[in-house]
Amino acid sequence: MIQSNKVHEILYGGDYNPEQWGEQEIQKDMEYLPQAGVNIVTLNVFNWAMIQPDETHYDFSGLDETVRMVTEKGMKICMATATGAHPAWMAHRHPDILRTEFNGMKRKFGARHNSCPNSPTFHTYSTRLAAKLAEHYKNQENIAAWHIGNEYGGICYCENCEKAFRIWLQKKYGTLDKLNQVWNTHFWGHTFYDWDEIVAPNLLTEHFESNRSMYPCITLDYYRFYSDSLLQNFIDESDEIRKAIPDAKITTNLMGFYKDLDYGKWAKHMDFVSWDNYPSAGEPEAMIAMKHDLMRGLKPGMPFSLMEQTPSVSNWHNYATLKRPGEMRLMSYQAMGHGADTIMFFQMRQCRAECEKLHSAFISHVGTNDTRIYKECQALGLELHSLGNEILGSRVPAKAAIVFDWNNWWAIEMSAGLNMDLHYIDELYAYYEALHAYGVQVDVIGVDAPLDAYKLVIAPTLYMVKPGVADRLTAFADQGGTLVVSIYSGLADENENVTQSGYPGELRKLCGLWIEEFDSLPSGELNHFTWNGQRYTSELMFAISHPEGAQTLAAYESDFYAKMPVLSKHTTGKGQVYYFGTRSEKAFYHAFMKQLCADQKILAQDAQELPEGLELSIREKDGAEYLFFLNHKGEEEHAGKENSIRLTEALAGVSMLGEREYKAGELLTLPPYGVEILKKKI
Amino acid sequence: MIQSNKVHEILYGGDYNPEQWGEQEIQKDMEYLPQAGVNIVTLNVFNWAMIQPDETHYDFSGLDETVRMVTEKGMKICMATATGAHPAWMAHRHPDILRTEFNGMKRKFGARHNSCPNSPTFHTYSTRLAAKLAEHYKNQENIAAWHIGNEYGGICYCENCEKAFRIWLQKKYGTLDKLNQVWNTHFWGHTFYDWDEIVAPNLLTEHFESNRSMYPCITLDYYRFYSDSLLQNFIDESDEIRKAIPDAKITTNLMGFYKDLDYGKWAKHMDFVSWDNYPSAGEPEAMIAMKHDLMRGLKPGMPFSLMEQTPSVSNWHNYATLKRPGEMRLMSYQAMGHGADTIMFFQMRQCRAECEKLHSAFISHVGTNDTRIYKECQALGLELHSLGNEILGSRVPAKAAIVFDWNNWWAIEMSAGLNMDLHYIDELYAYYEALHAYGVQVDVIGVDAPLDAYKLVIAPTLYMVKPGVADRLTAFADQGGTLVVSIYSGLADENENVTQSGYPGELRKLCGLWIEEFDSLPSGELNHFTWNGQRYTSELMFAISHPEGAQTLAAYESDFYAKMPVLSKHTTGKGQVYYFGTRSEKAFYHAFMKQLCADQKILAQDAQELPEGLELSIREKDGAEYLFFLNHKGEEEHAGKENSIRLTEALAGVSMLGEREYKAGELLTLPPYGVEILKKKI
Amino acid sequence: MIQSNKVHEILYGGDYNPEQWGEQEIQKDMEYLPQAGVNIVTLNVFNWAMIQPDETHYDFSGLDETVRMVTEKGMKICMATATGAHPAWMAHRHPDILRTEFNGMKRKFGARHNSCPNSPTFHTYSTRLAAKLAEHYKNQENIAAWHIGNEYGGICYCENCEKAFRIWLQKKYGTLDKLNQVWNTHFWGHTFYDWDEIVAPNLLTEHFESNRSMYPCITLDYYRFYSDSLLQNFIDESDEIRKAIPDAKITTNLMGFYKDLDYGKWAKHMDFVSWDNYPSAGEPEAMIAMKHDLMRGLKPGMPFSLMEQTPSVSNWHNYATLKRPGEMRLMSYQAMGHGADTIMFFQMRQCRAECEKLHSAFISHVGTNDTRIYKECQALGLELHSLGNEILGSRVPAKAAIVFDWNNWWAIEMSAGLNMDLHYIDELYAYYEALHAYGVQVDVIGVDAPLDAYKLVIAPTLYMVKPGVADRLTAFADQGGTLVVSIYSGLADENENVTQSGYPGELRKLCGLWIEEFDSLPSGELNHFTWNGQRYTSELMFAISHPEGAQTLAAYESDFYAKMPVLSKHTTGKGQVYYFGTRSEKAFYHAFMKQLCADQKILAQDAQELPEGLELSIREKDGAEYLFFLNHKGEEEHAGKENSIRLTEALAGVSMLGEREYKAGELLTLPPYGVEILKKKI
Repeated sequence: MIQSNKVHEILYGGDYNPEQWGEQEIQKDMEYLPQAGVNIVTLNVFNWAMIQPDETHYDFSGLDETVRMVTEKGMKICMATATGAHPAWMAHRHPDILRTEFNGMKRKFGARHNSCPNSPTFHTYSTRLAAKLAEHYKNQENIAAWHIGNEYGGICYCENCEKAFRIWLQKKYGTLDKLNQVWNTHFWGHTFYDWDEIVAPNLLTEHFESNRSMYPCITLDYYRFYSDSLLQNFIDESDEIRKAIPDAKITTNLMGFYKDLDYGKWAKHMDFVSWDNYPSAGEPEAMIAMKHDLMRGLKPGMPFSLMEQTPSVSNWHNYATLKRPGEMRLMSYQAMGHGADTIMFFQMRQCRAECEKLHSAFISHVGTNDTRIYKECQALGLELHSLGNEILGSRVPAKAAIVFDWNNWWAIEMSAGLNMDLHYIDELYAYYEALHAYGVQVDVIGVDAPLDAYKLVIAPTLYMVKPGVADRLTAFADQGGTLVVSIYSGLADENENVTQSGYPGELRKLCGLWIEEFDSLPSGELNHFTWNGQRYTSELMFAISHPEGAQTLAAYESDFYAKMPVLSKHTTGKGQVYYFGTRSEKAFYHAFMKQLCADQKILAQDAQELPEGLELSIREKDGAEYLFFLNHKGEEEHAGKENSIRLTEALAGVSMLGEREYKAGELLTLPPYGVEILKKKI
Repeated sequence: MIQSNKVHEILYGGDYNPEQWGEQEIQKDMEYLPQAGVNIVTLNVFNWAMIQPDETHYDFSGLDETVRMVTEKGMKICMATATGAHPAWMAHRHPDILRTEFNGMKRKFGARHNSCPNSPTFHTYSTRLAAKLAEHYKNQENIAAWHIGNEYGGICYCENCEKAFRIWLQKKYGTLDKLNQVWNTHFWGHTFYDWDEIVAPNLLTEHFESNRSMYPCITLDYYRFYSDSLLQNFIDESDEIRKAIPDAKITTNLMGFYKDLDYGKWAKHMDFVSWDNYPSAGEPEAMIAMKHDLMRGLKPGMPFSLMEQTPSVSNWHNYATLKRPGEMRLMSYQAMGHGADTIMFFQMRQCRAECEKLHSAFISHVGTNDTRIYKECQALGLELHSLGNEILGSRVPAKAAIVFDWNNWWAIEMSAGLNMDLHYIDELYAYYEALHAYGVQVDVIGVDAPLDAYKLVIAPTLYMVKPGVADRLTAFADQGGTLVVSIYSGLADENENVTQSGYPGELRKLCGLWIEEFDSLPSGELNHFTWNGQRYTSELMFAISHPEGAQTLAAYESDFYAKMPVLSKHTTGKGQVYYFGTRSEKAFYHAFMKQLCADQKILAQDAQELPEGLELSIREKDGAEYLFFLNHKGEEEHAGKENSIRLTEALAGVSMLGEREYKAGELLTLPPYGVEILKKKI
Repeated sequence: MIQSNKVHEILYGGDYNPEQWGEQEIQKDMEYLPQAGVNIVTLNVFNWAMIQPDETHYDFSGLDETVRMVTEKGMKICMATATGAHPAWMAHRHPDILRTEFNGMKRKFGARHNSCPNSPTFHTYSTRLAAKLAEHYKNQENIAAWHIGNEYGGICYCENCEKAFRIWLQKKYGTLDKLNQVWNTHFWGHTFYDWDEIVAPNLLTEHFESNRSMYPCITLDYYRFYSDSLLQNFIDESDEIRKAIPDAKITTNLMGFYKDLDYGKWAKHMDFVSWDNYPSAGEPEAMIAMKHDLMRGLKPGMPFSLMEQTPSVSNWHNYATLKRPGEMRLMSYQAMGHGADTIMFFQMRQCRAECEKLHSAFISHVGTNDTRIYKECQALGLELHSLGNEILGSRVPAKAAIVFDWNNWWAIEMSAGLNMDLHYIDELYAYYEALHAYGVQVDVIGVDAPLDAYKLVIAPTLYMVKPGVADRLTAFADQGGTLVVSIYSGLADENENVTQSGYPGELRKLCGLWIEEFDSLPSGELNHFTWNGQRYTSELMFAISHPEGAQTLAAYESDFYAKMPVLSKHTTGKGQVYYFGTRSEKAFYHAFMKQLCADQKILAQDAQELPEGLELSIREKDGAEYLFFLNHKGEEEHAGKENSIRLTEALAGVSMLGEREYKAGELLTLPPYGVEILKKKI
């Protein structure tokens, strides 16, 4: 993760907000944290109002004191720029900093992540603060990374944003003629004759629901513009820091499948990716795994930082279910298995008040080190220390990739139709979960990522095909890769204009078929098909296609398109392209992925599914593989209270957490929430 | 429909919006449309922004070119006035044209159907545009009809509307004393001393939910005022067109049970009624049939125009289910069977972008004539042509009528109570569906319609009894008719003031009973009653009545009103009045309607229900009856894949779609979605 | 109730709004009401607009006439100040009187209860009106009570409220430093440097849902401030009345568990408590009983006034279910059994129009005295008259109390977490319902109420422990009382700052245990425990506690905290404290409460549950007990159509409604909705 020459160990720690405490509590913290193996704290995330009491004064004395103490204890610092929440005085005196809601209402001071990214006031003071901080701490050796803002997100629709949107559009389109053409404004009386006629698409203009737009072309560009606006905030602060500290390592904490921001674009401006992992209780481990792989895929191959997780409950879930004994450790290793080089928490001591007061922390309200949570955190900290640094910087050797694109997500879900139950992430997950069940390592990558390293690439529901993507996918298949294209792909270009050359548009030749129509039914209304002797369900959407070179592998069983292809295979160059034209059930995706992985010889172990709840993640470095075996079953979930796997040759190795060596053919048994890491020379 | 001397055939076509296409696509259209029997296109629905780039310039050149092309191809034109969406520049420079939402927020530019009807700007420019268009095209011979605006609807609450509301109220009430009295304002401290104190009833004033008002009297008048405001827009443009083209045939496209507008009042100002039929997948055929009959009933007896339907999917439904092969044809004939003289679509070529880009069209995105949809459309176009013009102008010979009133609908559903599960349309449908099942032809008529032609009149849930209505219903019954009055009728006068003379108020004498109380229970909590030896459920509302001349036909089975009448019959003059005091199940309505129709001898065929899914519609002209047999079952829905009916004498005739003659006693068999039209001399 | 020397009988009557009627109707009213035993009417509730047509004129002539008539008929008057709805002219000319919504939108004129409490206009005119009324009617001998405003409620977020909020905060905190410290603003960048930076917490500032706040500390104070603001309106008008009429008895009608107002604080300023009881159909009798006890507990021990109930339907419920024959009488006696000394209705004659037009009334729309409702009302009126005045002023001799606190309610439900299915009222009800089932008389009391009179005190879910409360509870237990503390208690102080001394904080020593963590699961996911040989469910929340002196009575059955205590008992002084750490099922609460009441010898009858649907309420005065036996089962609900109880010695007495005496051992049998009152010397 933090590709800094200052970091030679797994970083362990998290957010520390001592401004709520007295000296006594802070003394305790300085004792308990190092004792638990904490070697990094994130400081200053929300301190803007304390540091800057008015337009001209800055006071770093409180922060200096904290920095001094944690430095004295040998901890590193992840230094935040504190711009995740502007001060009340700033909102009061300079209301342009306040956002305007989707419904058109201007906000007043309150909450967090509350600044308009196109506010002149915000621009002036956020960059000045970043500059002051960098200047002030440029010689602070133990600052391992800089953390800009916090969990960027939320959308503003104010007049400053509208003005900035028009400038953004002018840069993109040059002329109104071009914009009118691309946006198809001549239809429905939307022709614009002056840039100033363009307004932000929201509930008062083009939207009839929070995410459905009457004019998706406009909304799509607004989403792009807005993601760019916040990104510009990030870049502006980064620039100030780099002026003072040229080699600063700069990041911000992302949030997995966070819809509003095109993280693919963001990552190019970040020195390393970090993210906050807050699954709700009961979220499947494969879903969490997919998020890790998505985050890792933002900077392909490079390890990332787990910037935040909670030691136990997230209070803002509907049901604040405790992480069971061992579960936090398990989830920490899961992150590491997928590429994390840090394990960090929000937060070090539980808040005294406000909306996260019941969020769990390293040190609980009671303030002692005699709690289950502290003890588990401590045990993990010491264990991580014992692992040394050899895993640091290792890569996940994925041969399979799933393509994901934020613009595509926006496009699919901001239009009315064709099926309200079809969700992009679900389609992704159907394939991911199957690969995960077989222990196949997966990269989740953007549409512009290189594909050379892969043998199998899946592009689920690639509704929007951007320029060059069809060519890259074709090249991949021609050179021997296996490509899977699924339902509702190839409809629109990058501007949300529908193809005029027959669905799946630019992918038509590659898939070897023409889709004439899509049928759509409520979830639960089933069709079926049979493939490889097994009968599977088909639901939600139904591509009605005509082969143009593709071979029909399976056909619909009923309805007027009975006997028409549902699963096709098209041979192209040295490779092949599968088109799957509906939504099916888990069993199908398992069988399908197993077959394709077997064909490409990228199955992890003897073509068997892993036991339910058992996850296998692999990292690789310097001729060694690190095999993470993770048992996601808790005590209540399996009778025998253990989960085991017969190790193949490929999976045997030496335990890094215990003392023993596992040979091929041996049984590796994991207790509830148990973890094993085997090291294997390759 | 279009009672124009220019129209001598069934019109077939629909909306054409070529502004999205290049020359090549348009050339194709000009080839494919005539080849499919298209003889009319609707033009200019949303072109305002293209035609008028600023306050003073108008440019018809683009439209001229389209007109030239379609004229060359021999097609007629339905010419729209393009005022369904105002230009962006107009909203930008003259914000009074923008609406204010129900929640008080002022809109900005966006979407469609977006003009405030009381905006001076809109008035000026919409009438000027209509005048310019009419002047420009007054000699264009193939314009068969003029189409004002588009799908009028949506409500505005701006200050211009408030001012216009006060003027409307002054005209209606003359004095504030009168208004205070009718509105009952002295109760609850609402006395108005100055007209300017009156504000629009919305979420910031009288409403506590989107449709529930604290002061229904105010809301009722606002709804009336607002429907009148949009109607005035329609009239204003119509007047301009008539100045240039005195014999112009003018319409606008209505939307079935659209709540906001009192179509009954609108229709009086339209030369012919046209409407847009977009049922969701799975909507019962009887519901669609009822909508057709409602639309036809707006100008009693006169055929109407089906202005829009979709060839296949409506993309904005939750599930964009394809119309199955044959289904579009079936629905087209259903419209015709209920009185449509045109079959028209939205739209001729599928949009390139924006929120209806996935809505189906005559010519699909792929742009060829080699699609299922095009081929079905073409087949229907040619078939309609083969029918000639003899059905044109024929009438539906209904002897039964159901009374429907928009003011009543508003009144019932804007008050709190008495039962949130009781919906006016449901009550209507319960009776309609039963009559439909027996093939009884029904008119859906307003409360002011003449009743002479009917033998059976049903007035479901006539909560509001307007002046003269009780007298007309009484005269109808006295002269031998059968009248059915149902639950929750006769409570209020035209001003939403509750009767002080005992429910059902003005209908009390006519029904021969007094209702002391209404009980109300959640749906699913059942009472029962027995009628004609059959036991039926009773639910939702329960009138507790005392006979005053009426005979009790059935009584409640349980609760404290057990043994009190639920179904009564009152003989009056030569006729009879039934009062049904609850909601029952389908079987009851079938038995009840069968009995009443049998008594009045207006059953279609031997007192048998039609086979499920089979519909019978009848039109009549010049001594011939046209019997439409429609099979609404698709392949998946019935095992034997056909639906058949043994023809009685009354139903035998000569097929207009095939070659053969059907004699009485023969079996008429229809394939899935099959249609037959038999012509019978009478 | 009305502790007035003018009242020597049970008051029976209600709201009378003759401004809607002509002379004829009013004449009828003056006949029917006295005939039905009505001896009081509430006048002038919403007449502000009629009385005051502009800034300077007042016209009492209409009200004078009504007062004259009712006085002539010997009826008393509850005189309202009419400030429950301001006039339209006032809103039009002085918009500061209008409220601003939670979403930031400024309201316009409409609805009721619509004035901003911090509006200078409202202050000026409401107090002036109260003064004028008091002056005008100060010699009107039959005014038994004054009724300020009406059903106070609703929250405003306007700038005047914000200004008043800042002044309120200055009074409370003195300095911003103190406020910043208590509100924990240094966390999350909320430090305030100027009072003017503080804004009202709503959807535009701190709230992310209607009731969930990002900054609960701010919201808590705003709720307090706002309840105080409305209370100040009440006090301001009261003061004016007292200036003219020093011995006036002043009240306003409360609404049971109404969340927005801290009635505990309000009651201190009211001469007597009155409230409006509008249960929805099917609301359990124990819930209604609990509300009565809550209202009575506001002024401990003092009888209250039932100010409003409906004779039959409340039209604004989703289903306006009729009160069955006898049900209104039953509910009237239920109120009396719990401490009501008046039985009053909204309203005397059914409205002609507007949103309560379908609400039932003493005299129905039909206007005759020949209705079921009138006759039942009349019978009750005469029956109450026959009871004389001996019950008047009697007390409920409760030995058990449940603690309820509005601030605690707000605090629990304005934060995110820990379990969205945990509701404060549900927790209260679980205990109340069990005590009710055993006929144990209960006071519902505030956290500051004296506890000396009780043997059993239950403090369910006392999340917020205000200063002094722990001490008072400790003293109660030390002196021999039994105290029950339940789940989620003892977390926060009065400022919503979480305890740093280990949950349950200030109650830790008292309960003899430390709670390390709370688990939380969706409702329906069960754990179990066994107590006294019975196995019970455990759900929602699960305290994980360590005994510190307490004895474990029952332990969790499963999960990682299996065998850890769920029910504990701690002996302290002469008493004992039970801690119950989860949510269980009804059977448990019954068994638990039975045991504790038996131990304390406060069970009503031989330790048996009362028959289902049978309620026992007791009042006591001058050496006599009045035992109210109430059968809440209707005809449809029990087969044998009666409910009976074998009377113990403690329950035997002489019937006040019939003639006979009931001896111990006899069976008292009640018909559906039947009532008996036995008088017993003690």
